[in-house]
Amino acid sequence: MHQLILLRHGESVWNQENLFTGWTDVDLSERGREESRLAGLALKEQGIAFDVAFTSVLKRAIRTLWILLDEMDRMWVPVHHDWRLNERHYGALQGLNKAQTAEKYGVDQVKKWRRSYQVKPPALEPGDPRHPQFDPRYRELEPSLLPATECLKDTVERVLPCWESQVAPLLRQGKRVLVAAHGNSLRGLIKYLDGISDDDIVNLEIPTGQPLIYELDQELRPLRHHYLRSQS
Amino acid sequence: MHQLILLRHGESVWNQENLFTGWTDVDLSERGREESRLAGLALKEQGIAFDVAFTSVLKRAIRTLWILLDEMDRMWVPVHHDWRLNERHYGALQGLNKAQTAEKYGVDQVKKWRRSYQVKPPALEPGDPRHPQFDPRYRELEPSLLPATECLKDTVERVLPCWESQVAPLLRQGKRVLVAAHGNSLRGLIKYLDGISDDDIVNLEIPTGQPLIYELDQELRPLRHHYLRSQS
Repeated sequence: MHQLILLRHGESVWNQENLFTGWTDVDLSERGREESRLAGLALKEQGIAFDVAFTSVLKRAIRTLWILLDEMDRMWVPVHHDWRLNERHYGALQGLNKAQTAEKYGVDQVKKWRRSYQVKPPALEPGDPRHPQFDPRYRELEPSLLPATECLKDTVERVLPCWESQVAPLLRQGKRVLVAAHGNSLRGLIKYLDGISDDDIVNLEIPTGQPLIYELDQELRPLRHHYLRSQS
Repeated sequence: MHQLILLRHGESVWNQENLFTGWTDVDLSERGREESRLAGLALKEQGIAFDVAFTSVLKRAIRTLWILLDEMDRMWVPVHHDWRLNERHYGALQGLNKAQTAEKYGVDQVKKWRRSYQVKPPALEPGDPRHPQFDPRYRELEPSLLPATECLKDTVERVLPCWESQVAPLLRQGKRVLVAAHGNSLRGLIKYLDGISDDDIVNLEIPTGQPLIYELDQELRPLRHHYLRSQS
């Protein structure tokens, strides 16, 4: 039997301000830091450890993991950063207020961008300074891999190769793995693991800062899962 | 030309209390945290970046690196943890007060343990709960690799394979590398790079929290080096 822990990062400062975030590298809010600490405490209290961790290249996920590792007194655990675990890229909506965007484009259009599986928000222009081609953390990637916008389907399709090539081999070796990531990249993993339909996955809500523990069989098929809460 | 940055962790709480630390996993003091922040600030101010970092499995080095990465806004930089970058193992002296140890064993004996290249302090007993065999971070290592005490020569001899197999190949690929480690593991690297004698290396003092920038030629031989200080 294999153990996988999924963890959505704690609240960010843009969650608080109701802005579209996507690949924008915003930090955790104070509440997000406390959520991360409580996630580490819950794992520690219940004696649930892991041997290796994966996270995105965005600081709200990395800081969630750092705070959790610190709380568990396991700062030495190997951590792999992978851009494919990033949040869904929200294109030109990144940085816009959700309410203002609804006023400008209409509630129905914004709902489509947020809740359909295959509709992409408007893309960033290639010269837009927010475009990932200008960010040093993506410098070594093929430019054709870098999104200027994504629908959830795009996010799922880039998350799964990370699962197949990086995460699954370590699980098969018997490692206990934690993935600290984002709402939509985790939807991608859960969609795959639990065989959830395109229509249903968009409505799956993953709470922030709650470790989601999967037990997987020898073929890495889920046997059961549950959310962990701090008992203190 | 290749760029290597060496960084000794900031002051720890046991530095303050004048205790032998070795592999004991003590944290940074407040002053050590501030030193780490200033190290990151100095690199940022002078536009000196790096592509990959190495550190030990001890939290005073890891936290130094985390604070520095945070200050540089580069939390996404890949980090490799390697036990071979740990501080010298101080055997049964770990946790003892330096002044009391001098009273018990004599100043000359303690000086030998601290300042000779080949004299090991008394070893931990195999059943001593401080022995690394009981620590989960070393669980996957061959038990024969785990020291119960070390002289500086032993530390140097375990650091160099880490250099050869992990650090040097990345430098040869053109990566800029930072190594956040400990007084004696860094002595090992500097001894090798600068060809310093056994007698001289024990007296080389490496200041805490001061990035030491090496420029290396194509064969990774040092061309020059200097310590970086914050200009603000």
